[in-house]
Amino acid sequence: MYNITPIDGGLATVPGFYCGSVNVGLRPDTSQGDVAFIRSDRLCDVAAVFTSNRFQAAPIRHYQRYPDGFQTDFILINAKNANAMTGEAGIRDIDTILDALGKKIDVTHPIMSSTGVIGYRLPTEKIITAFDRLDFEACNSDATARAILTTDTFKKEVACDVTFGDGRSFRIAAIAKGAGMIDPAMATMLAFIVTDADVPRDEMEMLLRDGADASFNRISVDGDTSTNDTALLLSNHASGVYDREAFREGLRYVMFELAMMILRDGEGSTKVVAFDIKGAASTDDARKAAVALSNSLLVKTALFGEDPNWGRIASTIGSAGIACDEETLRIHYDDVLIYAPEQRELDREREEIAYRVMQQDTFTVTCDLGMGEGGYTAYGCDLSYDYVKINAEYRT
Amino acid sequence: MYNITPIDGGLATVPGFYCGSVNVGLRPDTSQGDVAFIRSDRLCDVAAVFTSNRFQAAPIRHYQRYPDGFQTDFILINAKNANAMTGEAGIRDIDTILDALGKKIDVTHPIMSSTGVIGYRLPTEKIITAFDRLDFEACNSDATARAILTTDTFKKEVACDVTFGDGRSFRIAAIAKGAGMIDPAMATMLAFIVTDADVPRDEMEMLLRDGADASFNRISVDGDTSTNDTALLLSNHASGVYDREAFREGLRYVMFELAMMILRDGEGSTKVVAFDIKGAASTDDARKAAVALSNSLLVKTALFGEDPNWGRIASTIGSAGIACDEETLRIHYDDVLIYAPEQRELDREREEIAYRVMQQDTFTVTCDLGMGEGGYTAYGCDLSYDYVKINAEYRT
Repeated sequence: MYNITPIDGGLATVPGFYCGSVNVGLRPDTSQGDVAFIRSDRLCDVAAVFTSNRFQAAPIRHYQRYPDGFQTDFILINAKNANAMTGEAGIRDIDTILDALGKKIDVTHPIMSSTGVIGYRLPTEKIITAFDRLDFEACNSDATARAILTTDTFKKEVACDVTFGDGRSFRIAAIAKGAGMIDPAMATMLAFIVTDADVPRDEMEMLLRDGADASFNRISVDGDTSTNDTALLLSNHASGVYDREAFREGLRYVMFELAMMILRDGEGSTKVVAFDIKGAASTDDARKAAVALSNSLLVKTALFGEDPNWGRIASTIGSAGIACDEETLRIHYDDVLIYAPEQRELDREREEIAYRVMQQDTFTVTCDLGMGEGGYTAYGCDLSYDYVKINAEYRT
Repeated sequence: MYNITPIDGGLATVPGFYCGSVNVGLRPDTSQGDVAFIRSDRLCDVAAVFTSNRFQAAPIRHYQRYPDGFQTDFILINAKNANAMTGEAGIRDIDTILDALGKKIDVTHPIMSSTGVIGYRLPTEKIITAFDRLDFEACNSDATARAILTTDTFKKEVACDVTFGDGRSFRIAAIAKGAGMIDPAMATMLAFIVTDADVPRDEMEMLLRDGADASFNRISVDGDTSTNDTALLLSNHASGVYDREAFREGLRYVMFELAMMILRDGEGSTKVVAFDIKGAASTDDARKAAVALSNSLLVKTALFGEDPNWGRIASTIGSAGIACDEETLRIHYDDVLIYAPEQRELDREREEIAYRVMQQDTFTVTCDLGMGEGGYTAYGCDLSYDYVKINAEYRT
């Protein structure tokens, strides 16, 4: 038996971890950091999942040059510049920065992570100035969570204790950034997760992938996938406590909460909608339908308009390349039946009820395909004027 | 040798065809028709391509119940109601309407086509009132082209003469509707094409599919595919003239012009952009990259913002699931080199030139992947505030 208890606080609430940030001039607003670090007082095992984008950014390629099974005690993160599409020079820039770091503090296999605009070399000199100003013994979780943000409007931070009946426990804490360019198949974001659970290193990647499949890979803001998507998991084993199922659930909890925060912060979004597919011929069919709904511009604009136009839901399912039949389909918005073969036209009364469901900040669109046992839930948001504004003006 | 000459005029410029429209109250603006017909004075061979959406609308399923190789002399079209997701009742409604038509005029295998909102039964009584008011000898091409529109802001009509050195000729004329829900893989639209070319019936479908692949299947407004997409080709053979290559080119010309009109009328779009992929490892890779670019929200909003942010182009190609490499990629906006491995960062001068290219109503984004010989061109438009407005408020 175990319990998962949310706790306040961020990365530094996990024993043995330090974090902090500084502004070196990458971000005009100097009240917010743009270079951040996460440090462990001992070597950690590490697992990572990265973007499926073929143009992986330099920090990802740099990470992959470390030997299999390497351990680390340091992550350096910068905002405002993705160090993507910068070729070998981008990787050399990371070496330059990490060499300079190594002259200030003893680090092993330091990892770099970047987010921001694609196509520009990192300002290495500016970033290196951070090392004179950072306090590597700091526990500034809040500032660290804020320093990694780009178009985000709020910080994403979550932590929990996993406790067992006999009083043993471990802790998991995490931060993330992400608001746009969020797509299933590794949402476009950075996430850093630290734990003192004594998780065996050979289970870490599997568990991280499982967590991503249940969280970041189920959310969509705009259907695009970036060059820099990264989720990192560091374990310092300090608690000496581990139980696979308990850790899996704790990790899923933390990652799902981060994913929902990213979706709530979806650029210009005003509501979060769960697309729950049931009765599909297969899980794969269910996933295709759920993802298609969460990505459809016509569905997303109807959500923004709070228009109970179920025809767009049906049309999107019909074009998802899956087995479906209008004679077996049933659509609900929360508990309200919107479409069934025996009740096709939406009368004024049900339309009014459906409209009230859609006015909520969050609700569920359930589609029972009536074809089999396959199920999947994906999460999306609406598309507003502000999405266009934010993304038309991003660089200017 | 043959020449393709654009001509003024619409469907009725092809000898033997009549067309007209009337407003029966489906559309509030009574100055525009909402029920239209296209009639031939003799039986025509017919070919069709339909939506790949699994929820095919009732008119498509009604058409498919006619015997293989059937001939027709009549098409009836209504706007404002798609007769989709209406089950068997929707097909019976078509029978009711066409039975009433048959009492007014002698028709053979009449075809019905519908566009508009999904999920409501056709108002059969209202539509039947049209038959007392329509002049079946009319040649009102312009009114017909306008009667089939929904969110379109202008009519789509094109015609051409295909003439040979010896003075023989045939004619092709066509109309279309479509402005939103336009996706490659059969753009969401209706198109009606008539000709007096003596095209063999067993070549018609192949030629129509070829034309669709080079036109409607290459355009994207919002990546959604509807329940009603239809392109119909009718030939009355009246000219007695035919040459396969000449007809293929004439048909391609007519269909491509319609597709570009649909894209220019893309809901809220302000510019049309060609995405020209070269040097892909295969034609399929090139197609995937071109389609991904034409569908990407981040690319579309950058086009609207006239922001030469090539990172979004690169990121979209990288996530298209194709072979690519940042060391061989080259991106041009018209003739302006935007990205090359040896010239990655956009300096102020080139950025200014790129910005001027993007201010045009239409331009070409060329991406040479440097991986092989595959090429494909798709066409897209930008995403503006007005797209959101139009689609958030569509039904209200």
